[in-house]
Amino acid sequence: MIKAGIIGSTGYTGIELTRLLHRHPQVELVHTGSRSFAGRPYADEIGSFRGQSDSICIDASIEETARDCDVVFLALPHGIASKQLTEAVLQQSCIIDLGADYRLKSQVEYEQWYGVEHGSPRLLKHAVYGLPELIGRKAISSTNLIANPGCYTTCSILSTAPLVKAGVCDPPIIIDAKSGVSGAGRKASQGLLYGEVNESIKAYKLKSHRHTPEIEQVLTEVSGSKVKVQFTPHLVPMNRGILTTAYIHPSAEASAQITSERIRQLYQDMYREELFIRLLPEGVFPETRWVRGSNFVDIGLSYDERTGLILVVAAIDNLMKGAAGQAVQNMNIRFGFDEVAGLEDLPLFP
Amino acid sequence: MIKAGIIGSTGYTGIELTRLLHRHPQVELVHTGSRSFAGRPYADEIGSFRGQSDSICIDASIEETARDCDVVFLALPHGIASKQLTEAVLQQSCIIDLGADYRLKSQVEYEQWYGVEHGSPRLLKHAVYGLPELIGRKAISSTNLIANPGCYTTCSILSTAPLVKAGVCDPPIIIDAKSGVSGAGRKASQGLLYGEVNESIKAYKLKSHRHTPEIEQVLTEVSGSKVKVQFTPHLVPMNRGILTTAYIHPSAEASAQITSERIRQLYQDMYREELFIRLLPEGVFPETRWVRGSNFVDIGLSYDERTGLILVVAAIDNLMKGAAGQAVQNMNIRFGFDEVAGLEDLPLFP
Amino acid sequence: MIKAGIIGSTGYTGIELTRLLHRHPQVELVHTGSRSFAGRPYADEIGSFRGQSDSICIDASIEETARDCDVVFLALPHGIASKQLTEAVLQQSCIIDLGADYRLKSQVEYEQWYGVEHGSPRLLKHAVYGLPELIGRKAISSTNLIANPGCYTTCSILSTAPLVKAGVCDPPIIIDAKSGVSGAGRKASQGLLYGEVNESIKAYKLKSHRHTPEIEQVLTEVSGSKVKVQFTPHLVPMNRGILTTAYIHPSAEASAQITSERIRQLYQDMYREELFIRLLPEGVFPETRWVRGSNFVDIGLSYDERTGLILVVAAIDNLMKGAAGQAVQNMNIRFGFDEVAGLEDLPLFP
Amino acid sequence: MIKAGIIGSTGYTGIELTRLLHRHPQVELVHTGSRSFAGRPYADEIGSFRGQSDSICIDASIEETARDCDVVFLALPHGIASKQLTEAVLQQSCIIDLGADYRLKSQVEYEQWYGVEHGSPRLLKHAVYGLPELIGRKAISSTNLIANPGCYTTCSILSTAPLVKAGVCDPPIIIDAKSGVSGAGRKASQGLLYGEVNESIKAYKLKSHRHTPEIEQVLTEVSGSKVKVQFTPHLVPMNRGILTTAYIHPSAEASAQITSERIRQLYQDMYREELFIRLLPEGVFPETRWVRGSNFVDIGLSYDERTGLILVVAAIDNLMKGAAGQAVQNMNIRFGFDEVAGLEDLPLFP
Repeated sequence: MIKAGIIGSTGYTGIELTRLLHRHPQVELVHTGSRSFAGRPYADEIGSFRGQSDSICIDASIEETARDCDVVFLALPHGIASKQLTEAVLQQSCIIDLGADYRLKSQVEYEQWYGVEHGSPRLLKHAVYGLPELIGRKAISSTNLIANPGCYTTCSILSTAPLVKAGVCDPPIIIDAKSGVSGAGRKASQGLLYGEVNESIKAYKLKSHRHTPEIEQVLTEVSGSKVKVQFTPHLVPMNRGILTTAYIHPSAEASAQITSERIRQLYQDMYREELFIRLLPEGVFPETRWVRGSNFVDIGLSYDERTGLILVVAAIDNLMKGAAGQAVQNMNIRFGFDEVAGLEDLPLFP
Repeated sequence: MIKAGIIGSTGYTGIELTRLLHRHPQVELVHTGSRSFAGRPYADEIGSFRGQSDSICIDASIEETARDCDVVFLALPHGIASKQLTEAVLQQSCIIDLGADYRLKSQVEYEQWYGVEHGSPRLLKHAVYGLPELIGRKAISSTNLIANPGCYTTCSILSTAPLVKAGVCDPPIIIDAKSGVSGAGRKASQGLLYGEVNESIKAYKLKSHRHTPEIEQVLTEVSGSKVKVQFTPHLVPMNRGILTTAYIHPSAEASAQITSERIRQLYQDMYREELFIRLLPEGVFPETRWVRGSNFVDIGLSYDERTGLILVVAAIDNLMKGAAGQAVQNMNIRFGFDEVAGLEDLPLFP
Repeated sequence: MIKAGIIGSTGYTGIELTRLLHRHPQVELVHTGSRSFAGRPYADEIGSFRGQSDSICIDASIEETARDCDVVFLALPHGIASKQLTEAVLQQSCIIDLGADYRLKSQVEYEQWYGVEHGSPRLLKHAVYGLPELIGRKAISSTNLIANPGCYTTCSILSTAPLVKAGVCDPPIIIDAKSGVSGAGRKASQGLLYGEVNESIKAYKLKSHRHTPEIEQVLTEVSGSKVKVQFTPHLVPMNRGILTTAYIHPSAEASAQITSERIRQLYQDMYREELFIRLLPEGVFPETRWVRGSNFVDIGLSYDERTGLILVVAAIDNLMKGAAGQAVQNMNIRFGFDEVAGLEDLPLFP
Repeated sequence: MIKAGIIGSTGYTGIELTRLLHRHPQVELVHTGSRSFAGRPYADEIGSFRGQSDSICIDASIEETARDCDVVFLALPHGIASKQLTEAVLQQSCIIDLGADYRLKSQVEYEQWYGVEHGSPRLLKHAVYGLPELIGRKAISSTNLIANPGCYTTCSILSTAPLVKAGVCDPPIIIDAKSGVSGAGRKASQGLLYGEVNESIKAYKLKSHRHTPEIEQVLTEVSGSKVKVQFTPHLVPMNRGILTTAYIHPSAEASAQITSERIRQLYQDMYREELFIRLLPEGVFPETRWVRGSNFVDIGLSYDERTGLILVVAAIDNLMKGAAGQAVQNMNIRFGFDEVAGLEDLPLFP
């Protein structure tokens, strides 16, 4: 039994983490951090916990929280974690950062894409990118600073990595992504009001979404050579779910040998042991409703002989495998628990 | 470990039951019945189970199913169960009927409201109405025929029973109910298409909804004298959730002594031990989002001194406490399991 | 051709007004007021007008606006209009206030329900409540201060007035109301975020919603004696639409003679000439989808002999007959235009 | 004043056509055809018309309808029109077919993609593809058989044609399309139930959607040489709206000279005179909410120097410019009316 704390427990990601940790067999959730609701019962603010939790919201720093906790989850806007985190904290406690501060390995690139100074660049070298299916459980299990991947990132990377690794892609990889609204957070803003989002779809942050360098960084590592990605996110009127549709030009040399079966084999080889990745049969493609509330990644594949393009569609729940679920998975690995502990819920449909 | 079967496992209620039983620690789900998909893998039809279940859909009768199962859940349209069920089956297996065939004690009333002949009126006397908070666990634990209540019914009854029992209500009790769409089932029909339901709300079946006699039957039992209910259901553009708003005129004699506190006390007295009922504090009222995916019943109360009316608002997840969750709760009671086994999930928000 | 201005033209009501006036055959819209977007092209902010309007947002006072305009529409939060409006302005221009400041005839009641001081109580006597179907076109056509009714109010009053006028109601009249989200305005607030509203329904402001005294004031006038209303609003996950379900106890003397036909006759007598009121046939009840984008009020009626209650269900588009549409209707009456000018659009379905 | 008839007037497209023609200044709608509701008042089935139309649904053949009408709109599933239509009918009346039967010029291709025999291949040569912005008003105005384009098709073609015409595209053009649910029609089917569609997004008919050959046919004409398109539709939980996101590789020779400005110029040159096409400024991209209920096509452009791809995002209302609105536009051209007659409504927001 380890002790866990969450900083930022009343945003959508924080609430989902609280839900998962509340029922995790090996975790005691001792700290539900919230600046806005400090001093108030958590269950008064987040009604789903009424009668189930007597936790009081606390406004405490990372350092204060780490004192009482074996693991601290940070669910904060970018730029805050890097200013508060120190080596001393990392010696005391394992930090799982669901924000962006330690995802990019390059301080320069971080500051360029996020427009803020990085508060602790010296810690970047300690950070392990927490994408277990790709990065390796060994690294995750031996660090105290886990950078939990972005939601779009997770779906984009996992659905294209086998092709990238096999070296069959001509750049750029095109990823047309669609997300439910909870990915944008719980802060009041006109653009996220019901009346603005409902009954509409839009593309946004074309050419400039901050998950782009993150996707490219990891895929470049996987590939061994620089990978470029054309990433276009869209906002869809639904609470949860990310769907990515990737369009991949095979390279000239790969092109001749590509078949649907060979592509499928690449994915099977890479993900055979993965419990959260579900490779759908030929002709079946993911729908976000089939992963809602679960930690699954559903992937569907096809090669279009008519056009010569490879199509990969993938779906995750952005708050689960795209955030809180993956954070718990990383914690499980780090502390030697069963990797699926606390993540066994089946999707909730409808 | 008991063996369970579901007849009608690919409708919304059946899917929810399958989800709950799949992870229930003391149940092995051995039979996922479906006429439409007989012979096909369950997980091929209901994508959330992909990789998690290798069950094949079977089209078997109640009798055939009961042979292999300690408990059989019936998730069927009304009129089918009563034609298939026999004493012999009931001697073999416990039947939990999520349909309407055994809810009304009176054959005449059933045939009048449902417009079909009852196929096995002689079995009505064996049926126990499976509303544990009101009917008593003892009766449930000693029967092999549990009539699982309707979704509107559960919410309406549990939210008004303490007042009815205390004898403070002047008839009729007005219940204005709002339901998500899954309550209407999964059968193709134009009226339930996305384009018809989305961006609209309507009242339907005014004066004539079939849950009316069910509510009246139970409240009359609770009261000791005939209770009349004005029940008006509304269809709301959302997947899950029922909200009922009850308006109650206190009787002349009760009127003088009514206060918010005294009303609240009646609910506390009745539901103190109930794990699934959450009485909200003064001034807080239920929202369906806080019960989604859970077996909770949230109840908020108020007495309006200005108008002299008592207001009771209640929320459930129609597929959980309104159907599958309650059925599992009944099974737990019947087989001596922990009453919350398999029902411990917190609500999924957002 | 008259000149019109809108103060608050970038909220939901203001946008709807702009849409209607933009195409009104006898109106030139010369002023789109907006504090937030002052100096910016209206069509840059409200994309539906792109290429159709070259209006620039202006932050001007009521007085400044009135100088250029024959009619000024105020779409402002309560408390602002009453502080800016003066007799001098009213001599210059006709003011149609879509806010609450001049709806209640009693300053005391206003200050009690709205919790702010009324800035110009001396003007209250000039205000005419702009509900043409009830208040009379004559009064509207001869005033320069029209208090445009609230959205819930319009639907609640029009759907019960014939019964109230006939003196058949025992108090309180119960109105269970359901509204889409646009009624709550366009200001950023966490409670109105997509993720909070979608997939949920709740009751709110029980016993205390500010449209209550407005409904009671008008129905009391209609009745001749004090009418009490139990008004309970609910928030429904949809953009537009209000549905009210009214439950009415007939008075003891009325009770004996009530039939569905006689009730229907009361409505036909009162609304025979009304172009925007559609009385639905026996057994048919309103759905908000059939009025979306139009100025119609759909009303369905029933008498439940079993319970002795009268049921009235009504639907409007809250931004049309509940706000902007009714304001244009009032303008048409005031300036002697055809009452349906600019309001002839059929509902948009789906 | 011409007389118009609609065959299939109670589907989503038919209802939208009825709405538009009902208020068209130069059209009398004399025939609302419907097999399902033959003999019943149209307004009883489509509640938005209650009190506004006394039309009775008729089940009549194209021939019978053409006898009374100058123009007949066909809103039918594919395969029916081609079996009923004859030269004789075309001599009598102008047919605007909103279905697929006369869109593809090649009988072989039609039969291959639609899997049915074409009933009147000899008429194909009379058919003019009714996309006025590309095909030319002259052809449209002088035919009696107008093949109204598909919804995805309209958006895909108009948003890429200027690039295709300029010869700057390397094949295939990738079009990732997202549609609201009304595009799938109003026939009862499980897959379109609210509970299946809401809170989910999916790709469907990858590599095989029937609008693919239609898009390719027209773009090939525009280009002068064969154009290949990778078209992937997605189903989005909303009633109306199509958004297409196109990814275009410039050809090697074009690549060196491409800038955002030059691309923009191509669009301005082509669409300068078009009243329904709105080219958005640099950095602004379409959202379906800004075209809802209108006949507009909003187009946003960008060139990504980092990746070398051209991005084009476009939005239409699938029932308007994607179906009924475009059909009315074609009728206006054919009969010499003002091209925007009956199509002047601004978008309805929210």
